[in-house]
Amino acid sequence: MSRVRVHNFSISLDGFGTGEGQTLEAPFGHAGSRLHAWFFPTRTFQQMQGKSGGSASIDDAFAQNWAHGIGAEIMGRNKFGHQRGPWVDEDWKGWWGDDPPFHTPVFILTHHPRPAITMEGGTTFHFIDAGPAVALEAAREAAGGLDVRIGGGPTTIRQFLAADLIDYMHLAVVPIVLGRGERLWDSLEGLEQRFHVEAVSSPSGVTHLTFARR
Amino acid sequence: MSRVRVHNFSISLDGFGTGEGQTLEAPFGHAGSRLHAWFFPTRTFQQMQGKSGGSASIDDAFAQNWAHGIGAEIMGRNKFGHQRGPWVDEDWKGWWGDDPPFHTPVFILTHHPRPAITMEGGTTFHFIDAGPAVALEAAREAAGGLDVRIGGGPTTIRQFLAADLIDYMHLAVVPIVLGRGERLWDSLEGLEQRFHVEAVSSPSGVTHLTFARR
Repeated sequence: MSRVRVHNFSISLDGFGTGEGQTLEAPFGHAGSRLHAWFFPTRTFQQMQGKSGGSASIDDAFAQNWAHGIGAEIMGRNKFGHQRGPWVDEDWKGWWGDDPPFHTPVFILTHHPRPAITMEGGTTFHFIDAGPAVALEAAREAAGGLDVRIGGGPTTIRQFLAADLIDYMHLAVVPIVLGRGERLWDSLEGLEQRFHVEAVSSPSGVTHLTFARR
Repeated sequence: MSRVRVHNFSISLDGFGTGEGQTLEAPFGHAGSRLHAWFFPTRTFQQMQGKSGGSASIDDAFAQNWAHGIGAEIMGRNKFGHQRGPWVDEDWKGWWGDDPPFHTPVFILTHHPRPAITMEGGTTFHFIDAGPAVALEAAREAAGGLDVRIGGGPTTIRQFLAADLIDYMHLAVVPIVLGRGERLWDSLEGLEQRFHVEAVSSPSGVTHLTFARR
């Protein structure tokens, strides 16, 4: 059975996976790039940008697992773009550029479905109005036996955790206090009982947490 | 100048420093002993209990710093006992036994002052109705040039952090999701800017965080 995985998902000490006030220019709102500063120097991120180099650090050891064996991603609408409600600008194809780093089908959860968009490099954006279980069924079908990644944001991951659909989760806890935004942990009391949880801190200051289904 | 320090303060992944529903039998409410399970095996805790043995672990290396150079403690009323409002049972002298582990003056913040209680072993409980700055002044006076420890709970530590009165803070992040209780981090956006923050994970599963004033 294919697994459902979360990778490289950053949260602040106070559990926010994104800041307040998302806009076109600020996908993470007032958090800016602070939640992902650990990720940018890694070889994994540099390769995503089509560059060479980058550090082969502890952070990179975690980061590079994100694509292995993944056949599809599910993401919340706000990871695709900043628009809310009915789509007013269908020409804008999201934050991810002409050749998005996913290279698989990507299922975007929205109450406002629109036609799929085929991008360069194997990424296709599908827009579906579905809850976690139904979305996962569609993604598994598209993944052809490979694993499905739940890409975020915090609300989407929380919904999949609440529905007990996540098999593996890697979080990076960043030593900042964001104060406001979207929380990951709400309404997940006792989550640790379903997982083997480990923590390892990195010289970058980030603490990597892994949750593996028991 | 004497420093103001926090030691061995445990929080859950979702930032709760205590659970919901404190009672005489459950000082940490529904959290039970889960927030402190890392602490009990340490030499430091065993010595507090008048026992020998215990582990000389990474956890103990952090734990044992709590008493060095401390001349007084400040704690919130709920760390002393479970009673709310006017004191109805002054014969009950708190959770800490006849010979509390503090061995210094302890200032308990309460809107209901009562006469001081002298315990065995050098601990005196003083009950004062004061905000952080005034309480700290009294504790510094009593500490005779030594440092002052802010003992918790979460609300008390948060108030001292908000007032920028903490010089050093050691937290232990426990890999559980409590879901409810008292949060440490609320209203502390940007706290990390005032501190040098480091993290190290322990084989026990806990991640130790240190905040040292910049």
